[in-house]
Amino acid sequence: MTKIRDVSVTNVVAVAEGRRPRVVIIGGGFAGINAAKALANSAVDVTLIDRCNHHTFQPLLYQVALAVLTTSDIATPIRGVLRHARNVEILMDEVVNVDTKHRHVILGSGLEIEYDYLIVATGSTHSYFGHNDWEQHAPGLKTTDDALEIRRRVLLAFELAEREALAKGTHPELNFVVIGAGPTGVELAGAIAEISRLFLSRDFRHIDPKQARTMLIEAGPRILPAYPEDLSIKALTQLRRLGVEVLTGTQVQDIQCGFVLVNGGERINANVTLWAAGVAASPLGKMLGVETDRRGRVIVGPTLNPAGHSEIFICGDLANFVQDGGEVPGVAQPAMQMGAHAGRMILQDLRKEARTHFRYFDKGDMATIGRFSAVANIKWPFRARWGGLIAWFTWLTVHLAFIISYRNRMSVLFQWAWTYLFYLRGSRLITGNQSLKGQQKQQPTRVPLSRSVLR
Amino acid sequence: MTKIRDVSVTNVVAVAEGRRPRVVIIGGGFAGINAAKALANSAVDVTLIDRCNHHTFQPLLYQVALAVLTTSDIATPIRGVLRHARNVEILMDEVVNVDTKHRHVILGSGLEIEYDYLIVATGSTHSYFGHNDWEQHAPGLKTTDDALEIRRRVLLAFELAEREALAKGTHPELNFVVIGAGPTGVELAGAIAEISRLFLSRDFRHIDPKQARTMLIEAGPRILPAYPEDLSIKALTQLRRLGVEVLTGTQVQDIQCGFVLVNGGERINANVTLWAAGVAASPLGKMLGVETDRRGRVIVGPTLNPAGHSEIFICGDLANFVQDGGEVPGVAQPAMQMGAHAGRMILQDLRKEARTHFRYFDKGDMATIGRFSAVANIKWPFRARWGGLIAWFTWLTVHLAFIISYRNRMSVLFQWAWTYLFYLRGSRLITGNQSLKGQQKQQPTRVPLSRSVLR
Repeated sequence: MTKIRDVSVTNVVAVAEGRRPRVVIIGGGFAGINAAKALANSAVDVTLIDRCNHHTFQPLLYQVALAVLTTSDIATPIRGVLRHARNVEILMDEVVNVDTKHRHVILGSGLEIEYDYLIVATGSTHSYFGHNDWEQHAPGLKTTDDALEIRRRVLLAFELAEREALAKGTHPELNFVVIGAGPTGVELAGAIAEISRLFLSRDFRHIDPKQARTMLIEAGPRILPAYPEDLSIKALTQLRRLGVEVLTGTQVQDIQCGFVLVNGGERINANVTLWAAGVAASPLGKMLGVETDRRGRVIVGPTLNPAGHSEIFICGDLANFVQDGGEVPGVAQPAMQMGAHAGRMILQDLRKEARTHFRYFDKGDMATIGRFSAVANIKWPFRARWGGLIAWFTWLTVHLAFIISYRNRMSVLFQWAWTYLFYLRGSRLITGNQSLKGQQKQQPTRVPLSRSVLR
Repeated sequence: MTKIRDVSVTNVVAVAEGRRPRVVIIGGGFAGINAAKALANSAVDVTLIDRCNHHTFQPLLYQVALAVLTTSDIATPIRGVLRHARNVEILMDEVVNVDTKHRHVILGSGLEIEYDYLIVATGSTHSYFGHNDWEQHAPGLKTTDDALEIRRRVLLAFELAEREALAKGTHPELNFVVIGAGPTGVELAGAIAEISRLFLSRDFRHIDPKQARTMLIEAGPRILPAYPEDLSIKALTQLRRLGVEVLTGTQVQDIQCGFVLVNGGERINANVTLWAAGVAASPLGKMLGVETDRRGRVIVGPTLNPAGHSEIFICGDLANFVQDGGEVPGVAQPAMQMGAHAGRMILQDLRKEARTHFRYFDKGDMATIGRFSAVANIKWPFRARWGGLIAWFTWLTVHLAFIISYRNRMSVLFQWAWTYLFYLRGSRLITGNQSLKGQQKQQPTRVPLSRSVLR
């Protein structure tokens, strides 16, 4: 928050009739939680609405997907996080529309919640660029359920290969394809390569998990396009050391069950395909009836309000906020800062102070590649570009410090120690009632007594 | 294992042609895992088949259901447990039939696995005494997926009550009904009472979770019928202290969505109903074409073989084994001992030693009621009947010692300390793609600005 003042937007919402103003927050992600925290135990009533009962620490979701952490390590009940904010109520429900004229939010259950202020922080979802049928073959990673589905697919691929090798003595190549080489794609590809090389290597009798191939496909000329070029090169070197095959300049044409078509129709077989290529804003942005960009994000002014609605704040990935000529990226840090800023602006309104401009304070970015391996583009408290071990330790420290509850922090530290020091993964569970649903029925094949387990 | 020798069953399976005999184990529960461990790195090939990729520590499943522990605290990948048994292969598949004549197991994938020895340890499932339609309204607790579904229902009931209280200013009574007062029913009822009284009390703004009612329904005259009567009374006192209403001598007539009918048609409203009243043997027992009892368990002789099949061992809950005139109960201890015994018998066959009779060594039973509260009927290394704190600490120690992998033991200890000392539950997550599927659409109800969050 800078000291620049915007005199054009001042206390536009009358706090009438001596009652406490009601703030409705949609979304319990980084932005929503931080807005609620900024308003905790102040002179407003806050209703926070989310479809889930938990806040998810999204930067570590890929670790749930690849069985390092469990869901409860990175997800915290929202009620627990905001337990001490006595003026905040939490509603587990889905927002289906917003009536900005009459100022109420319409919920899936039929409830309609009136508001004086509205903070919309519903984030983003996957975008398949119009190919929505790709989703079933190439899930993305946004929620804890996504993470468990990815885990199921990856671990099941090894199980099915083992079974085929048992039946036939051989099995086709095991290929994992990750599409999109932003931080999530890089982290997923690195983690898959690591799980097959380090963690599963002693678990099977008929297949060699080390032979599994991991491919990272990127349409652009280099991986981690938002990072400085030297860090892209460092990340590429580290990924290759882990055995990931990186295919830059490769356009995906089609995704089907079992394979991906790239460039001029070249076919890449894929037991599991994961999507980390595109995000679109939550559809709620368009329901507000305000200006949005081509990705569905709401265009906001310097105080995070859409034009004509000083009672509405848009925070996090859903906001298209321009600073110094560039768009602020859709990552955790600006979301947290925006949420806190929106909360403070409401408190300033109550004190009849002018609103202040939002300014994103960028401390830098980090992406892990594997154990002891990461890249870090640090901008605060000093400037540095690191690759390798030092970047990894920085990543570890920063992420531990950020995880929202103390309890989870301890548990994560414990699991990381176990994983990275002893090569054991404790969360390697395939869950869900239809664990085996991915399997195809084979021709009856007899396994004779003469075949031995020992290799 | 006693030293009594059964000279009638001796080395009936020829180990022909100099090859390694193949042992197929069906089921990765306590019996199956212990059979595989007994056979680890011996002169046989072992194929262990399970639908899941993990072994579940069932005695603590209720703690996953009531959000004390996470799934991965009590579930361990079978491949991890048996990693060092180089002669054991694991197959994630479903057994659809067994051809005992030609000695092969038929799998859902189409594979057929030939065997020299077969160990069947597929356990038990819920029995609704012919009322299979009750299952949707009153789930039971046998698997990790069951536990997560129970957790979803219990936590969602509080969420929906909070929403209704927000909309209408009031909500109907919140009732939880547990049917069946064996150890599982007692533990579930105690844990629900505890979660509503201790752990959720500060989480809501419009409802008071302490007002929720927990009812435990038992058809028989007393709870914990398998325990000595003085311990039943102690358990009853402790349950009542937690606020559980215990209804003994109460027959369930019908279970519908939202209520249970008992005795002569008396209606008990139930937001969540849980089933802990009946178990039936896994259907695999009947597929073997051998003698079974009315609950579908296979009747086995002193060496755990069904009549006429000395190459087949039945272990755990699936076995009807009579000792000293009584049936050995379907709990963890005999399952572990039977599995280990079956493995040893195969090794004795290989050494051309006569088989020895199985004898269940009963160390006693324990059931927890809540924090610092349990009953213990100890038979080894000394005899004692305890209630209260000392029983609870004994329960804690024994269960920690038994949890199968070292890592999980540490993590469970950590979570228990957190839960029982600081009243925090970290696993209070509602998961699943359709988290809100239980909700009914309400009439549109407007929540006006005048309603305050603060009470």
